[in-house]
Amino acid sequence: MKEPESLFLPEDSLGIVTDLYQLTMAAGYYEQHKQDIATFELSVRHLPKNRSYLIAAGLEQALHYLTHIKFSADTIQYLRQLPIFNHVSHKFFEYLKNFTFIGTVHAVPEGTIVFAEEPILRVTSPIIESQIVETYLLSTINFQTSIATKASRVVYAAKEREVIDFGMRRAHGPQAGVLAARSSFIGGCKGTSNVFAAYKLDIPAVGTIAHSWVMAFENEQDSFRKFHEIFPDNTILLIDTYDTLAGARHAALIGKKLKSVRIDSGDLLKLSREIRKILDAEGLPHVKIVASGDLNEERIDDLLQNGAPIDSFGVGTEMVTSKDAPALGGIYKLVEREHNGKTIPMMKFSEEKLTYPCRKQVYRAADKNGNFMGDVIGLEGETIDGTPLLIPVMKEGKICYDLPTIHEIQGAATDNLAHLPEPFKRLGEDGTYPVTKSQELEARRQETENIIRNNNIVSNRDTSANKTSVV
Amino acid sequence: MKEPESLFLPEDSLGIVTDLYQLTMAAGYYEQHKQDIATFELSVRHLPKNRSYLIAAGLEQALHYLTHIKFSADTIQYLRQLPIFNHVSHKFFEYLKNFTFIGTVHAVPEGTIVFAEEPILRVTSPIIESQIVETYLLSTINFQTSIATKASRVVYAAKEREVIDFGMRRAHGPQAGVLAARSSFIGGCKGTSNVFAAYKLDIPAVGTIAHSWVMAFENEQDSFRKFHEIFPDNTILLIDTYDTLAGARHAALIGKKLKSVRIDSGDLLKLSREIRKILDAEGLPHVKIVASGDLNEERIDDLLQNGAPIDSFGVGTEMVTSKDAPALGGIYKLVEREHNGKTIPMMKFSEEKLTYPCRKQVYRAADKNGNFMGDVIGLEGETIDGTPLLIPVMKEGKICYDLPTIHEIQGAATDNLAHLPEPFKRLGEDGTYPVTKSQELEARRQETENIIRNNNIVSNRDTSANKTSVV
Repeated sequence: MKEPESLFLPEDSLGIVTDLYQLTMAAGYYEQHKQDIATFELSVRHLPKNRSYLIAAGLEQALHYLTHIKFSADTIQYLRQLPIFNHVSHKFFEYLKNFTFIGTVHAVPEGTIVFAEEPILRVTSPIIESQIVETYLLSTINFQTSIATKASRVVYAAKEREVIDFGMRRAHGPQAGVLAARSSFIGGCKGTSNVFAAYKLDIPAVGTIAHSWVMAFENEQDSFRKFHEIFPDNTILLIDTYDTLAGARHAALIGKKLKSVRIDSGDLLKLSREIRKILDAEGLPHVKIVASGDLNEERIDDLLQNGAPIDSFGVGTEMVTSKDAPALGGIYKLVEREHNGKTIPMMKFSEEKLTYPCRKQVYRAADKNGNFMGDVIGLEGETIDGTPLLIPVMKEGKICYDLPTIHEIQGAATDNLAHLPEPFKRLGEDGTYPVTKSQELEARRQETENIIRNNNIVSNRDTSANKTSVV
Repeated sequence: MKEPESLFLPEDSLGIVTDLYQLTMAAGYYEQHKQDIATFELSVRHLPKNRSYLIAAGLEQALHYLTHIKFSADTIQYLRQLPIFNHVSHKFFEYLKNFTFIGTVHAVPEGTIVFAEEPILRVTSPIIESQIVETYLLSTINFQTSIATKASRVVYAAKEREVIDFGMRRAHGPQAGVLAARSSFIGGCKGTSNVFAAYKLDIPAVGTIAHSWVMAFENEQDSFRKFHEIFPDNTILLIDTYDTLAGARHAALIGKKLKSVRIDSGDLLKLSREIRKILDAEGLPHVKIVASGDLNEERIDDLLQNGAPIDSFGVGTEMVTSKDAPALGGIYKLVEREHNGKTIPMMKFSEEKLTYPCRKQVYRAADKNGNFMGDVIGLEGETIDGTPLLIPVMKEGKICYDLPTIHEIQGAATDNLAHLPEPFKRLGEDGTYPVTKSQELEARRQETENIIRNNNIVSNRDTSANKTSVV
């Protein structure tokens, strides 16, 4: 009988957690003796719908991957027998046996605000290595950046009230739930319901009861009393299993030790007001109201604009799936290669998919209060006013960067958001933060495009000469 | 210096991959000596936008979890020191040390078509166990069901042309990419670019080159020739790095051995037509055209309605994030408990969140050709025409079900879709497949609601009596 398969990521063989074409290209480079040192940059072509900035996240997991990637004997055996590799020499598979990543990586620290086209991460290494790691890096950075950004919007809408991640059950699998807990904390959440994430990350774990607790007793009042006996200092009661206002009155019977009540359904504005009245009338003004249930930044904003007396928000589905913009289109593009000691700038210019060549840096200008005024994307090493955002994080396969704690990352994100002018944070507005490209970068792009067009025109001519009938 | 953390799921401590409230409730049940055997059912309250059916998926990973869940000593130590557990006796933590899941599980096989409110999975076990496993089960079933369903729509739109999963880089982290590869195969995809998923699942791995390969050579023609040398039998060339039609001509120079060309940008309808002409004029009518680039079921349908000569579709972002409906609202609700040998039906009736009590079964009626005519949700054991969908998959913690291969699951899904009448599959239509509830189930619901209202009205009266000022 077949055993059920977990499909958990293989600690001992992260090499094959990639797209097949990365490995066919790797084999191709190997067979062609292509030893070029290639530089790839990871960026986002356009900001998604409803987003006027991004909060970079996922670097730590990317660095874990880069320091652990290898190919187990079993997976090499698997690759070897794939028909597509029939003509690939066995030396390539020998090479995979000893594969480790020995490249150099620059990145913006997690919690940094970035915009469209700005490099978030840059990999410089033998082309085979930088090629193989593309898929995993994109997946890791795309997702966490997407969620940290979404969470920061939710936290912004909640003003000073706390936001807690409740999303694991609706995340894209349990592992995505854990990564979402991490990145939503970076985006400003105060805790998570996800115990494993809280344990690993040393962030607050939050939660008390669900409807099933209430249903497991003869009546609601009984269920509340029993819960309070065991959790006297953390009595947060869910009051909407049957009738929310009756639930509020049942909860109030706990007395002064009652900490909070939670509502998860119905008209949260109306209910929160009536519940507040009930609690206040019972002499329980300190008891907090927690709201949850399909919340997002717009609904929270709407509730608070209308004066809903809610103290805390549990946000799940909408935040951990970034529901209004559930995918971030990060790309990872070859910008430069060193061939026989010569640096060759690289770009592509498919329709609507132009990329800029050369190793780039982002220079962020700020006023004397530290408020961000605009960014320039220039060449690395150019003299441009502003703080360069990309820093070295890995050198020849070794991390050369003191990894911040998650609390430090959250602090950095909060601080960065405080310096981002209001129009780029306000919900509903789609202000475009000023990002320009340096003249030198534009000149290099033009020059590179000309060279590549020339190389390809020559080859086009050959084609036409051979096959005039087609043209 | 801090080591980077992978946040991979802990094989040895899946117990804490859950929401904190599951563990506080577990502690509460333990302290209250609540030994009730509880039955929970997992279902989807409403179908998401643009969906008129769901394809159940994720059961195998759910069963892996249920057969492996435990708590490591370290994680128990962590829980013990959380302030919320201050008043919980150390016996509960001793209990967690030996925790395994010994429940009984019924489920619809993966690949089964299900509709709103139909139980997909049912867990019967001591209430502590069935409570703890809620979050992980929801996350697993929600995500895979969501993607299998989305993929089936994409495959439907592609008619007989093959659809390949290209989504890993845009999935919600690399692990979500692997689960998406699995569930999109269940939904009818013919392969995946994801090597690890292909390896583990024994499904076709697909892929050849990216733009970086083309850019790594002096010119496109050279890059194509070099690739063909190493992969003579699998020469699929990406032709849109610089100029797509020139790319098609360069690819044609490979001659008869060229297998396919791929386009990833631009106007796919116009380009595919012109490329077809170029290839045909070159005497290469057998060379296939593969299209990719932000495709979904609507765009594929549109291309094919307009006669685009595309033979194969690579679909990523939109499919693996189920972008138009990125979250599935699965719920897991207590429907029954056994208390001192007596079975007590359970339900909740918060506003808009009514659930039905009792162990249920779905009975699917079909005509003599096997075409589905309608479902009845009734009580388990009721005599109702139609095939019961839920089957036993686990008994007292042991799998009692011969797990099908992924190919068998795909076959079942394909077969089920073939028997689902056309109006419920057609894109853009929102036909509602007939699902009714048995009279007996409705009667039990009414009866249960009356009993619970009665229990709670009594307690409301007590409240009012004590606190008349509030009411």
